[in-house]
This record gives sequence, C-alpha cells and structure tokens, in this order.
Amino acid sequence: MTKVSIIGATGYAGQELVRLLCGHPKVEIKGLGTQNYKGQPFSDVYPNFRGIVDLPCQGADDPQLIAESDVIFLAMPHGQSVSLAQTAVEQGKKVIGLGADFRLRDPKVYEEWYQTKAAPAEQLAKAVYGLPEVNRQVISQCSLLANPGCYPTTVILALGPLLKEKAIDPAWLIIDSKSGVSGAGRGTTLTTHYCEVNEDFKAYGVPRHRHTPEIEQELSKLAGQEVQVSFTPHLIPATRGMLSTIYTVPLAGINAGKIAEIYQAYYGKEPFIRLLPVGEVPHTKWVSGTNYCDLAYSLDPRTGRLTIFSAIDNLVKGAAGQAVQNMNIMLGLEETLGLPRVAIYP
Amino acid sequence: MTKVSIIGATGYAGQELVRLLCGHPKVEIKGLGTQNYKGQPFSDVYPNFRGIVDLPCQGADDPQLIAESDVIFLAMPHGQSVSLAQTAVEQGKKVIGLGADFRLRDPKVYEEWYQTKAAPAEQLAKAVYGLPEVNRQVISQCSLLANPGCYPTTVILALGPLLKEKAIDPAWLIIDSKSGVSGAGRGTTLTTHYCEVNEDFKAYGVPRHRHTPEIEQELSKLAGQEVQVSFTPHLIPATRGMLSTIYTVPLAGINAGKIAEIYQAYYGKEPFIRLLPVGEVPHTKWVSGTNYCDLAYSLDPRTGRLTIFSAIDNLVKGAAGQAVQNMNIMLGLEETLGLPRVAIYP
Amino acid sequence: MTKVSIIGATGYAGQELVRLLCGHPKVEIKGLGTQNYKGQPFSDVYPNFRGIVDLPCQGADDPQLIAESDVIFLAMPHGQSVSLAQTAVEQGKKVIGLGADFRLRDPKVYEEWYQTKAAPAEQLAKAVYGLPEVNRQVISQCSLLANPGCYPTTVILALGPLLKEKAIDPAWLIIDSKSGVSGAGRGTTLTTHYCEVNEDFKAYGVPRHRHTPEIEQELSKLAGQEVQVSFTPHLIPATRGMLSTIYTVPLAGINAGKIAEIYQAYYGKEPFIRLLPVGEVPHTKWVSGTNYCDLAYSLDPRTGRLTIFSAIDNLVKGAAGQAVQNMNIMLGLEETLGLPRVAIYP
Amino acid sequence: MTKVSIIGATGYAGQELVRLLCGHPKVEIKGLGTQNYKGQPFSDVYPNFRGIVDLPCQGADDPQLIAESDVIFLAMPHGQSVSLAQTAVEQGKKVIGLGADFRLRDPKVYEEWYQTKAAPAEQLAKAVYGLPEVNRQVISQCSLLANPGCYPTTVILALGPLLKEKAIDPAWLIIDSKSGVSGAGRGTTLTTHYCEVNEDFKAYGVPRHRHTPEIEQELSKLAGQEVQVSFTPHLIPATRGMLSTIYTVPLAGINAGKIAEIYQAYYGKEPFIRLLPVGEVPHTKWVSGTNYCDLAYSLDPRTGRLTIFSAIDNLVKGAAGQAVQNMNIMLGLEETLGLPRVAIYP
Repeated sequence: MTKVSIIGATGYAGQELVRLLCGHPKVEIKGLGTQNYKGQPFSDVYPNFRGIVDLPCQGADDPQLIAESDVIFLAMPHGQSVSLAQTAVEQGKKVIGLGADFRLRDPKVYEEWYQTKAAPAEQLAKAVYGLPEVNRQVISQCSLLANPGCYPTTVILALGPLLKEKAIDPAWLIIDSKSGVSGAGRGTTLTTHYCEVNEDFKAYGVPRHRHTPEIEQELSKLAGQEVQVSFTPHLIPATRGMLSTIYTVPLAGINAGKIAEIYQAYYGKEPFIRLLPVGEVPHTKWVSGTNYCDLAYSLDPRTGRLTIFSAIDNLVKGAAGQAVQNMNIMLGLEETLGLPRVAIYP
Repeated sequence: MTKVSIIGATGYAGQELVRLLCGHPKVEIKGLGTQNYKGQPFSDVYPNFRGIVDLPCQGADDPQLIAESDVIFLAMPHGQSVSLAQTAVEQGKKVIGLGADFRLRDPKVYEEWYQTKAAPAEQLAKAVYGLPEVNRQVISQCSLLANPGCYPTTVILALGPLLKEKAIDPAWLIIDSKSGVSGAGRGTTLTTHYCEVNEDFKAYGVPRHRHTPEIEQELSKLAGQEVQVSFTPHLIPATRGMLSTIYTVPLAGINAGKIAEIYQAYYGKEPFIRLLPVGEVPHTKWVSGTNYCDLAYSLDPRTGRLTIFSAIDNLVKGAAGQAVQNMNIMLGLEETLGLPRVAIYP
Repeated sequence: MTKVSIIGATGYAGQELVRLLCGHPKVEIKGLGTQNYKGQPFSDVYPNFRGIVDLPCQGADDPQLIAESDVIFLAMPHGQSVSLAQTAVEQGKKVIGLGADFRLRDPKVYEEWYQTKAAPAEQLAKAVYGLPEVNRQVISQCSLLANPGCYPTTVILALGPLLKEKAIDPAWLIIDSKSGVSGAGRGTTLTTHYCEVNEDFKAYGVPRHRHTPEIEQELSKLAGQEVQVSFTPHLIPATRGMLSTIYTVPLAGINAGKIAEIYQAYYGKEPFIRLLPVGEVPHTKWVSGTNYCDLAYSLDPRTGRLTIFSAIDNLVKGAAGQAVQNMNIMLGLEETLGLPRVAIYP
Repeated sequence: MTKVSIIGATGYAGQELVRLLCGHPKVEIKGLGTQNYKGQPFSDVYPNFRGIVDLPCQGADDPQLIAESDVIFLAMPHGQSVSLAQTAVEQGKKVIGLGADFRLRDPKVYEEWYQTKAAPAEQLAKAVYGLPEVNRQVISQCSLLANPGCYPTTVILALGPLLKEKAIDPAWLIIDSKSGVSGAGRGTTLTTHYCEVNEDFKAYGVPRHRHTPEIEQELSKLAGQEVQVSFTPHLIPATRGMLSTIYTVPLAGINAGKIAEIYQAYYGKEPFIRLLPVGEVPHTKWVSGTNYCDLAYSLDPRTGRLTIFSAIDNLVKGAAGQAVQNMNIMLGLEETLGLPRVAIYP
C-alpha cells in the first residue's frame, strides 16, 4: 500500500481526493493537512465520512504529513504550495499539486495573471503538466506534477488532437465554458451564496480568467505555434459539472469524417474519454462523479463551422480524479484504479 | 378599458400574459382560450391566481374569444394560429401572435425549418415583426403582429445597432445562448423532468435550432446584407432566465468608445434596455420577472475580439412582456404600462 | 406622499421592502440606511434596481434617515434597533421593526432565548405585535410596531382561530416548518453556501429555535391559557417559500365542518388569506412574491387528528410585505396598497 | 458469479440497481427487462452507462430474463410483478420485488389502499419483508423478498427499537416526511415537471399515502400491538434524499440516556446505520448515493417530547441499495458487498 497525504484536505477538491483515495485499493491515507481544522476528525468537517474517514486533521505545515507518506497531494490555494513541494521533492516524494503554482512554464506569465510571485525557475523546470491523454509518458517519470485546471482540461482534450493534426484554424478558437459552483471552492463569499446563485446565470472573469494562459500554453505546444483563445467562463446554478462549447473553423479539406478519424486515433483507446455518437451532445450529468470527459462535435454544413462540446465533472476529471489518474501513472499502477466510472443518476 | 382575449392561456407564456394583463391599468381580460381546460376556472389550472383570475377557460376555438375582444393574443403551439389570426383580422381586431407562425417572411424558409405548412403569403405580408426597439413605428400601425422569439430578442438587440452601423464583421457572429427550462413550455416530456434537468447542463438543437432563420432574417435586414450566424442554445437548470454570449470582431477603426457610443445612441432612451457600466456583466436574475434586456460587452485588447452579453427573462421580454409592450404601442398607450420593472430578488 | 426610510436596506428583508415601497402609490422612499455600503448607490448593491432605485445608501446611524421621514423601517439584526427606535418614536415617527427586538413582552424570555439584553421595559410596553389578521385595531393606533417573525406568522394564522374558539387541544401542538434559504439572510456563511444547500435537506435549531417563545406568547394570548409547542424548522433547498405543517387534535364535538366554519368566520374577508378548497394543499410557489398566506387542513377520519398547512413567502408575508401591510394600517391607507397579489409562476 | 436480471431496469430504481450491481464483485448482470426500450442498448436510455453497460434491453416478459438468472429483481410498477414472481419462484430463483405487491400481509388492506387486486394469498404467505436490521434471519432463508418502501424504511428504523422496548407511547406517532423528486419515478407528469417543482415545496398524498399501512403493519408487529400513525409526505425540490421527522412521547421513566442505550443496542454494530452524536441532525446530502440511514433524536426538556430524525437516499437504502443488501443476505454473501459508503459531496 502506498502511503499518501493530502494537504488542503478540507477544500472541495481536497475532500474529493479523500473520497477517491479512501476507496483506492493500493493506497492508504496517512495524513490530512488543513489550515483551519487542526485536531478535528475529518468526519466532523465532512460528516458524509462519518465512520469511514475519522482521522484527525493535522496542520497544513505538520512535517509528518510529508515525512510519513510516499505521495503528497497539495490542494492548497495558489501561492501556498511552493515550499511544501520543495520539501517533499527533496525528501524524494512524489508531489501532485492541484493548484496553479506549477502549471505555467513562464514565471512572468504566471505573475502577470495571478498577481503573485511565481515558483522558482528550477522548480518550474522540473514540473510536468499532468494531462495523461497528452503526455502520459512524461508523467510516468516525474516527481513534481502540475495537475491541470478544470477549464483547460475540457479545452485541451477537445482541441489538442485537431490542432496537432492541423485540422482547424488556430486563429479561430472561441471557448464558451460553463461550470458548476463547486469550482469556486468552499469559501464563504457572496458569489457562492445559495440565494445569489440559484435561478441565476452569468459570465464571470471577463475577459481575463486565469485559466486563459494555461490553455494557450498547452494548445500552443500542441499546435506547434503561438495560439490565442477567446475564453469566457460562466456559472451554472448547479453544484458539479463543466461544459465547454468551442467554436472553430476546419482547415481546407477537413470534413466530418476526418475529424472523427482524428479523435478516434487519439482517444479510441483512452479509458476516460468517451466519443459520443454523431448527433448526440454531452450532458454534464452523464459524467457526474466520474473521471470521464465526454466529447462530441457538430460540423454545420450551412456555416462550415465546427462546434465541439466537452463535458467533465469539474471536481473529478477537472481536479481530484485526474490527480489520482496521474498518481496511478506515476506509481506504475493500472491507470483506472480507484476511479469511479458510473455517474450517479439522476 | 380595452378588452383582450388570450388564446393558449394555460401554457407558460399564456399564463404570464394573464399575470401581466390582469395588472394592466387599461385592459380588461375578457376571455381565456385553452385546448384542455374548457370550463375549468383558470385558477384551478394555476392556483397562484386563486381569487384573482377565477374566470372559466373557454375552448380555444370559441368564437366569442375573438368576437368580444379588441386585442387577441395567440399563444398557441406553432401551426395553430393561422386561421384564428385570419378570423380576428377580418373582424378588425388587433392580433398578437406569440408563436413562430408569422415571424419568417419567406414561407419556404419557414417550411424548411419548421416542417409544417407556412401561413398564406398575404397574411405573412401583413404581419409585422414586433421588436419595438427596432421598428416601433411600423408596430404602431399594424394589426397582425409577430412577437419575436426569446433567443432572437436577445441577439437582435445585442447585434442590431452594431451591424447597422457597420461596426462589426457580419461574417463572424457566434452566438452561445443559454435558457431556463420554462422556455420549453408546460408539456410533460423527459427533457423537462425535474430529475433530468436538475444538476445537468447541455446544449440542444445543434446545429439547427429553429430560431436561427429568424435571427438571420432580422440581422440581414439591419446589416443590409445576407448574414449567417452560428447559434447554439443550451439549457440552464433554472426556471427562468436567458443569456446570450455573442462573439464577433469589430471592423477596422472601431474601438470600445465607438461601441459605447453606438449603443448609447440606439438605446440611451429605451425604457426596457439597460446598458451596464463597463466591467459589469448581466445576471439573468437581475431581470427576472421584468421586461428588461440588460446589455454589456467586453472588447478584449489581447485578441481584438468583442464579446457581448444580453440577458432577458425568457417569459417576459422573451415572450409575454414584449407582447404587452407591443400591445401598448399598437393601442397608442404609454409603452411601459403594466410592465414590471423591479426583478424579484433574491 | 408619505416619506419613508429603511434602515438595514441591504439585507434581504430590507431590499424586499425597497421593492415593495418603490412601487407603492402613496409612499416616497427618502433614505436607505446600511452598515456596509455607505455612499454607494443602492443599485450597485442590488443591480436589479438599476435605473429604478439608484439612491445612494447612507450610514445606518445617519440622523437624517429618521429626521426626514414619517415612517422608519428597521430591518437590522436583532439588538441594533433599540436606540434607533427610541429616537424615532421621540421624534413622533411611526416605527416598524422587522427584527425580534420588540416582539416578546417579557424581557426575561427575550434574554433567555436571544442571549442579548432586551429593550427597555417602557419601550416593550409601547410596542404592538403586528399581525393584522389578529390585532388590526391596535396596530392602527400604534407608533412602535413589532413585525412578526416568518415562522410565527404561518403558525399563528393557522392555529389562532382554532385555539380562540376552543376547537383544538392546546396540549397537542406539533409544528414542522420548512423555510427557503433567504430567511437566513445575505450573510456569507457555510450554511448558506450554494453547494452545501443544493440537493440537501435538514432540520436546524433543534429543539430551541428562537421563534418558539414568540409563537407560544401569541398562541397563549389567543388560547387564554399557557400554551407550549413543539417546533422544528427545516431548510428547503429553494430561495423563497415557507410551509408549516401543524399536527393537533380537535376537541370533542369538533368536526371538519366546524373547522371550516371557524376559518371562514375569521378569514373569509381577509384580503391576504386564502382558504383552499377541501382536498387541496398549499404550494409555496403559489404565494411566491406575494403577501398571501394560503391555508388548508385535513381531518383524518382514521386517526382523528387534524393536520393544518400554512404557506407564505417568507420575505413578503413573513417580513417585508407584512411590514407594508402594517404601515398601510398605521397610516390609515387601504390595507392592500402596494402589495403584489399574483405570484410569478412558474 | 451469481447471475442476476433486472426487470423494470429503466425506471429510476431499476437503473440504480444497474449502477450498484454492475460494480458488485460477485454478480454478473445477465438481463435487463423493460417495457418500452426492447432492443435498445441500456446506455442509450441512460447514457451515463455508455461503455459500461451497453447490454440491449429485453422485453419485460422475455422468459430468458428469469430462465438464465439466479436472482430476479422486479422493479415494476405495482400490479405487474405478481405473475413474474410466480414464474421465477417456481423455477427455484430468488426474487426481490421492489414494488408494493408483496409488502402487505393482508390482501384486503392492500386492495383498499392500492385499489388493485392483491397478489394471491399463498404468494403473500411466502413473501418476507426485507428490512435487514429488523429481520435479517428470515431474509437469509427466503426466496421471495418484498423490499420495503422508502418512507417505511426511514420510519421503521427510527421507531422500531423504541416501540419494541416500550420506550415510547404508540398512541403518539406523528411522521412528517420529505422526499426528493426521484421517488416519483421517471414518468413524465406535471408533478415532476422541472418548472413546477423547482422553488416549490408542498405536502402530497394527504391524508392517505399508500405507505401508511406498510408503516403500521411493521410497527404493530414490533410494538406487539396495533399501532396507528399520522403520516404526511412532502416533496423536496431536489433529486435525491429523504428525511423523516418523527414526533412522539417517551413513556414514564425513559430519559435521553435510555434512548441512546436502546439505539446503541440495536444499531451499534449495524453496517448501514449511523447514530449521530448528540446535538447533530442528519442531512440528506450526507447519505446521498450510499446505503446509510443516519439517525438522530432530540428529547426536549421543555415539552418532554421526543423528536427523531431519519435520513436516507430514497433510491439507495430506500430502494435499490436495500435490495442489494437483501440479495447479499439471501445469497450468504458479505452484507456490505457492492454498496457505496462515501456520499458524493458536495
């Protein structure tokens, strides 16, 4: 059994890690680090875990968390993972960061979009961007993993193969994304107040949401050229679920058959990507609680434009589930271990 | 007091007309026509009206409905308004159709998109497309009014002035719309089952939603050239509310100031359009229950693209409220009469 | 036009007062007092009011709020209204307190349940409990009005007539109440976080919710004897709406006809109480946004027990609407002025 | 591997069985019987199962369903299981009925409350009421199991031990229950239309909900005397979750300690019952997707009354999960096999 600690265990992504890892057959949860609940049983903070994970929380800075585990998950607000990651890597541990700290290669870009100091260059140089469907090989050998953001996961999975195969125009990438509220975390803000969200719908972060440079960095790498996107996130009055609707233009000679072929080639054997039959569109509910990304597209014969739909559960494939998938790869385990496949429905 | 009848009064748009008209100071509701509730008090079908509108429903084809009223609202499923409208116009009544029957000028286009027989050409020729902010003058003189669809209302109000003023590229109009469930009507279908909608989000009608030709017809007229759009509607897990997020490209020489100026010129005095301050985006909740359309835009300096946000209550400005606004204009009344302005919040 | 100020205008009850009063034909809103938004336009805090109430907020302690108005609404957290009320009454103003400060006659009971110092005895002596259907006469002559709590409103309206007419056993009053989230206010707490409320249901305040002594005080007065209740509130995953399901036992000789007769005698002419037909039960949605209380009951022939259902909109009849109804009475206006009757549906 | 068939697999309870059974380590799903989807892959009807359960549905009356399986789950509307159960039992299969057909001992009671013909007396005589915490022993030996209704499960688990130990007054059992919408099934009715349920709350089935006689039958057996209850169900605007709030009176000499002791004695070792610490109340969200029943109580020192709270997921412990638990017992497997324990949160 591999020993794991989760630092930042009482945020929504953290507790989702606990849910997945406490059912993982090859893992033992050794420690749960938190900022506010030191000494309290985890099941006091999340009573759905009563009788299942009653482990007392430790302080986020408790050195035992790192010392006694083999894999350290860091699910802290950005800016708070850098020194913890440093310590853990120095002790030879595997580190999986769920925050933004290690995702952007260029510290200047990070500092511009996040308005905080970036991680040291040598740390960034070591970190691997953990989207298994794109760079599984590198992930398997890394010890510092930057788990992707939720929006970037939907977008890169949708556009990556088409950009890499030069099937679409990289100058026309318009991304209209929608996310459930849990993506905003458990912090108590007016924006997440039930009465403000329920029966409402709105965009936010216009026009500079922080996931934009992450999307552009990864798409540029795949396209082999600088790529800019228009990215607008919206808030769905729902707890979970994320859907990106992406508008682009196929390059000359690319028809629906070719697009199907490309997706099939890239994802036909992926355990967590489902290519929907022609004519269907993904529902967020179909992937809720699971690690799936459901993909579909529609090539409009009238306008010649291509619309791609990409749905995930923002807390699973968009955070904790993908982190566990990455851990499985890093540890040489079967990639699907401990990851739920059937969405709870309805 | 003007006498009005509502045929199709027990659908969601119909009952919203009843709500607005029973509080209208210059109107008396004379008759309520329905297909399924003949003889039952209206307040049995919608008990929120108990003690307020207890009028018994009549059959939709009851000739008294037309004979005894001055204004006839037709809130029937498409295809069922043609002969009723004919009869009413012949009797010299004002007719306001909330369905799609009279919106499209070209019967061939109607038949292609709706798969039903179009209204007779002479009837279509008489019908006026009732978007007051665009063609108030013609509305004031017509006797057969085609009340706009909900999605087209959000889109035409957002794009009309910019296309007319040649401020944006008509070749790049990408419309990502989101609607509450009430737009689907009161019919009992799996698509509107609580458990299927709640905690879900999805697109639908891809890529051929019926509001597409209506949007294109009106935008083409305003642009002075044929315009094609990419239009993708989505379903919000909420009862009311509609938001369109529209992506386009400003033409050379058009900056944010110019766009503000255009909107100000067109809408600065409109009673039901609110131009939000720079940096804000509309929330559907801010217009819920009211006849407002809230508009905002963001010109991204990085990409040069323009994103426009347009929010309405799909049952009010998107249906019944706009119909009452049109009635006020047609009757020479103050345009805002009987139309609620303060959204219920939260 | 009567001049009114609302102190505590940016809480949910406060802004609901603004909604109702800005549409009231005999009232002019003169000032809006707040604790946190001094100097900001009210429509910045609640953008649904943009273009309608753009008045800048004043500090809650701004003496102009009281000096320049005839009626002062105090919608502050409990404990903060006492000296404001004092000042206003001394200046000869009409004061309507929406908080709990003046509801309980006995300062000791107040202090036991609220754990704060009670208002001075002479102030409590002047205050009138403002449930119009019970004590309209006294309300019309008072200058310090204690607006009832939301739960007590549902319960006293349901049980008052039956207790007064000795129709039910005062030893068996079991009240199972359910409230929408807006009753908890706009404060940002974990309890009102969207993700914690959505898809959840639970009781709270067990077994000592603060509305218990208020219910018992008023029921005892009506019953002419000391009455104790079992009261358990629950949280509905909805923004608005309150339903109390009340279980009791008819006294000997009381049958369904007699109960109908009593309700009819007390409420047959009440403008804001609707007695539902036998066999129907109230839906919170039927009264949403209105000042109605919908009442129904069921006498079970099997068990002999009586179940009463009482539904209101917690922010209207349960707070702001009832306050306006009281203001109308205190000012000698028509009691229904400015109070919406048709619930927005669906 | 035990072979199982689910007849009525495309209702909500049926598909929940599929979810649980397709992850069960000792079971193989052999057939899925449906009334309306014959020949279609199950994952067409529930696309969350795409790639997981793509088995084509069979007609509900396909004899292979019974012939080729060892355990037959009948998740049909009541009245349609009788002859299927007959056939299956005759072939020596284990039958688990999720409908009401075999729950009531007395055919007259069944016919009075369900207004349909009861199952034959000899079938009823064989059927065992499957609440494992009450009669595990009998379940382990039966071949025709009547899986309990959702409401009765919450109530019998809450009251059973107290009635059996003569700790409460059987004359005072008042049950106020609340259920999520999924309990109403996937049928398309106005009652389950999103717009009618969302932001609404109401009672239903007053005063004769069909679960009443089932509750009374089982409580009477446990109490050793005839017991009558007041039972009022309500609809929560949520998909899943059920909470019963139960009001009763302790008998002389019974204090909180004694109640705790009784619950501990009966449930301390039960794998699917969690006794919450004093002062906590169950949230439906804490058990969502799991087979737990969370129990708490509050003895009010003021009134002397006892309030008990009992929460389950209506589709799991209230239907499919309990059915699987029963199957495990009937097959001599570990009772918790295949039953999820961690609720998805938030």
